[in-house]
Amino acid sequence: MSSKEKTKTTLIKPQVLKGFRDYLPAQMIAREGLMETAREVYRSFGFSPIDTPALERTEVLLGKSGDETEKQMFRFRDQGDRDVTMRFDLTIPFARFAALHLNEIGTPFKRYHLGTVWRGENPGKGRFREFMQCDFDTIGTDSVMSDIETLLVIHELMCRLGFDQFMIHMNNRQILNGWLDKHGLLDQATVVLRALDKILKIGREGVIAEMGAQAGIAVEQAEGILRLTELKGNANEMLTQLEAVLADHESGLAGVKRTRTIFETVIAAGVPEERLKLDLSIARGLDYYTGVIFETFLTERPDFGSVCSGGRYDNLAGMFTKQELPGVGASLGLDRLLAAMIEMDCLELRECPADVIVTIMDNDRLPEYYRLGQQLRAAGIRNEVYPEDKQFKKQMKYADRKGFRFAIIAGSDEFEQGIWQVKDLKAQAQQALSETELIAFLKSELAPAAT
Amino acid sequence: MSSKEKTKTTLIKPQVLKGFRDYLPAQMIAREGLMETAREVYRSFGFSPIDTPALERTEVLLGKSGDETEKQMFRFRDQGDRDVTMRFDLTIPFARFAALHLNEIGTPFKRYHLGTVWRGENPGKGRFREFMQCDFDTIGTDSVMSDIETLLVIHELMCRLGFDQFMIHMNNRQILNGWLDKHGLLDQATVVLRALDKILKIGREGVIAEMGAQAGIAVEQAEGILRLTELKGNANEMLTQLEAVLADHESGLAGVKRTRTIFETVIAAGVPEERLKLDLSIARGLDYYTGVIFETFLTERPDFGSVCSGGRYDNLAGMFTKQELPGVGASLGLDRLLAAMIEMDCLELRECPADVIVTIMDNDRLPEYYRLGQQLRAAGIRNEVYPEDKQFKKQMKYADRKGFRFAIIAGSDEFEQGIWQVKDLKAQAQQALSETELIAFLKSELAPAAT
Repeated sequence: MSSKEKTKTTLIKPQVLKGFRDYLPAQMIAREGLMETAREVYRSFGFSPIDTPALERTEVLLGKSGDETEKQMFRFRDQGDRDVTMRFDLTIPFARFAALHLNEIGTPFKRYHLGTVWRGENPGKGRFREFMQCDFDTIGTDSVMSDIETLLVIHELMCRLGFDQFMIHMNNRQILNGWLDKHGLLDQATVVLRALDKILKIGREGVIAEMGAQAGIAVEQAEGILRLTELKGNANEMLTQLEAVLADHESGLAGVKRTRTIFETVIAAGVPEERLKLDLSIARGLDYYTGVIFETFLTERPDFGSVCSGGRYDNLAGMFTKQELPGVGASLGLDRLLAAMIEMDCLELRECPADVIVTIMDNDRLPEYYRLGQQLRAAGIRNEVYPEDKQFKKQMKYADRKGFRFAIIAGSDEFEQGIWQVKDLKAQAQQALSETELIAFLKSELAPAAT
Repeated sequence: MSSKEKTKTTLIKPQVLKGFRDYLPAQMIAREGLMETAREVYRSFGFSPIDTPALERTEVLLGKSGDETEKQMFRFRDQGDRDVTMRFDLTIPFARFAALHLNEIGTPFKRYHLGTVWRGENPGKGRFREFMQCDFDTIGTDSVMSDIETLLVIHELMCRLGFDQFMIHMNNRQILNGWLDKHGLLDQATVVLRALDKILKIGREGVIAEMGAQAGIAVEQAEGILRLTELKGNANEMLTQLEAVLADHESGLAGVKRTRTIFETVIAAGVPEERLKLDLSIARGLDYYTGVIFETFLTERPDFGSVCSGGRYDNLAGMFTKQELPGVGASLGLDRLLAAMIEMDCLELRECPADVIVTIMDNDRLPEYYRLGQQLRAAGIRNEVYPEDKQFKKQMKYADRKGFRFAIIAGSDEFEQGIWQVKDLKAQAQQALSETELIAFLKSELAPAAT
């Protein structure tokens, strides 16, 4: 049996693994657009790109215990019998990277990293086993200036992605910790945060009960913690109240002061005050973050959750190096944002990145059509010369399906007269233009070039 | 022992798996630039992006036999005990994709795909276990027009990447097959191609001997094959000679005619003739390609091998569907090209994508520095506000290390006068400008914005 016959008799089912997905053109064009915008914003603030391998030693990603009870990882033994795992976030690889290349990169070091990560969790609505992360971080400094910059980047990202209705929620772990320390409860911080995190599920009474049961926190103290997280008003008023509540507690007051500096500076630098909210209830990352914390919500669709989150941490790479690397950063939820934008209908989905199709009426004039395509391209006009020898009707059907905006048409009459017909496929209007006119017309109609 | 103590006492060695690599900023900035250019060229011809998962069922990637003797794959059993493999090229995933989504995508279908692939081969000089592929293909048509377009894309890619000294070698499998068929040797095509492929290693005599030993091809016939592959001259002359050699052989002559059409059309469309070469010795892919074949060499550095290769094939997805999908495409050797560009010193390596650093002289004026940063950014000028409260000297050292072109400097004097000092860090020249003047100056100095 020849290999050709064998292929014919035993077709393999074309399928995608559970929890994984293909990106078809319309989604992928939109996704590339978001990624390019994110990259351009990061670059515009002087963050540099890095990349790390998809595969790392399991010890590097999970520590020596290699405990994967909490998170199901894609872990296996490679050809060299090494215990390896596919990266499940970009933070641990960055910690490993920073420890390994510290002398080359120096500090402060600002990097962005767009990369795919894999988690073998049970896939559910909007949850996949493969997704992209878009992180940016500044490490090697505990300066408030890098907190300020992080907030500016988040704001710029949202604006450049086309949003104007969003709210960046900000908290500072030092404030709650200051209060807990003042009341002799700092050792219970983890239990407190875990309980607070459940407030939507178990309610106020549930949170108070859990703090009592898990950490022996008295009801009035639990009430005090809850009141703190429930503070309302504008940031300035809240911070003034917090100064009173934390009176005499040095690090708590330092947290308040730092938070005030961040607010005041970004507003003075041009961020609209109504897009910022001091929200002492957000507790992202529980133990991980130690200073400022950010979450970003779409005003019209808070149900999508935070689309850009992050915060400050004390030490990035303690697992790998004795050098302390404090840092601050955030991560753009690209796929979540894409899903939101599609649902909110604020994204033009296109099947094809080109705007113009050059149709073929006269096969003996092929070079002319290609030459025109090159001329348009040189003028920045994305175009496609129809790639087959088919009837004109079929070419227009293809143009329709792909969503081109303009079709160029020319047969022997047009070649004789030295003109091109250009048809606006939306307006269904056609006109005859010289080549120079055509290029000028398309440039003005299509500017600014869509991505 | 608290987890913090534990972390301190048992540091994990920060290392990268054998055959894998990190990308540090300078390389990654260059790499992102190449990828963006490739994407922009593909889009400008109307190719649409797609993406597929990194992991697929082993059956999908390797066929039912799952034979991995030839190529060592990253293959394992996932949490659901499925036999899975990390993709080792983008062609088989595209075949699976095309078979699965054929109704949605329709034909002809033009896609590009930039994606990471993994091969567990022994790493060597310039060979890694993880690398990026940048493919583009047109499927669902056997039209010569898609061959022409493929060649135009390759040419445009090379130009837009900044090369002008390169040569695209072109062959057509139909020509050699026509000759073999005319001489009753078509069944020996694979042996012939394999022998020809060794010519640099074993020489003319070796090739003749191998054809004899492996396929019983007589010396004079082997000589005839070699003479065919050694034809010299311009494409037009060679094609005329081939018409004589292949006289009366229909598909052989069709191959010659098609090759002539491709040459004449792309030259008429503006591709310089001196960048094209008909080269009957290239035999890329051996059995896989069935029509036109492309390889691209850098004139100054042919030793890097072909940096963009591809060709026409009869049927992409025969493993998955009965629908025949002929196609043509090519793949840009991104990492090879990057290595060549670095060696040829035709790439500016930068540590940081921003051009301007805003230094901090007066910490009470932070909002002013950030406001300026936002103004510059809005004008398209990538800039970084120095992210720490440090001495000016340290800030300039940082600026030096990162390679900024301009530093903005302002202390109390400048704020009083309403000016900014701007220092050209290359020329070491400084001048005082108003904010409007500063923005105009930087825009003109930095245009066009570097990537």
